[in-house]
Amino acid sequence: MDDCVFCKIIKGEVPSYQVYEDNDFFAFLDIKPLNPGHTLVIPKKHYRWVWDVVNIGEYFEAVGKLARAIKKAFNTDYAISTVFGEAIQHAHVHLVPRLPDDGHGSTINWENMKKLGNLEMQEAMEKIKSAV
Amino acid sequence: MDDCVFCKIIKGEVPSYQVYEDNDFFAFLDIKPLNPGHTLVIPKKHYRWVWDVVNIGEYFEAVGKLARAIKKAFNTDYAISTVFGEAIQHAHVHLVPRLPDDGHGSTINWENMKKLGNLEMQEAMEKIKSAV
Repeated sequence: MDDCVFCKIIKGEVPSYQVYEDNDFFAFLDIKPLNPGHTLVIPKKHYRWVWDVVNIGEYFEAVGKLARAIKKAFNTDYAISTVFGEAIQHAHVHLVPRLPDDGHGSTINWENMKKLGNLEMQEAMEKIKSAV
Repeated sequence: MDDCVFCKIIKGEVPSYQVYEDNDFFAFLDIKPLNPGHTLVIPKKHYRWVWDVVNIGEYFEAVGKLARAIKKAFNTDYAISTVFGEAIQHAHVHLVPRLPDDGHGSTINWENMKKLGNLEMQEAMEKIKSAV
């Protein structure tokens, strides 16, 4: 879709901290991270909701691959909470590495973002890329 | 697992408002619903996290099937928010039918449960069962 920022990211028209790509799916760091390594996994084709994705099984094979990489990269087995968001009109899954002392409770407050610089984002990106 | 309540539900040792079952997966109403029709989809085999489920693709084929049934049953295209929870040590996906006037904001407060009687739970169960 022409006015969709995620479609622009996939086409490379908007820069992103990309961590994964295959034929159908794409993953990059959320620029409003709840924790370092907070990742978005999206289908390349524009769908409104996760449940509209025709090959949803393959989608979550990819999401699972990324989730396991993130757990490895950030050395957490504690929890990965994910939510399907509404702000962007392109299907996406959030993967947030969780640590016991990360300042988020069991109910995540999505306003409670971490301010990370470019260097910290790049570091998180490289960690995930080498763990995939 | 012997002391896992979800394993007991699958075995029929604990009653549930069951809405779906196939060889590998099982779905039932959350007894602490955020909205009528709030459903949990789980693997029959005990895994700690969603990302540990070996056939994660098939798992989300089933989750997608339930999500589409819930959208149909409750006549909402607005949103279905889902979170992978931590309270129960058995992998599960929440499916919550969302409506614009349901009293939940864009950030769901998981303490904000609806009190539903047995009759309302049964009605929601039947709605979903006939939509799957």
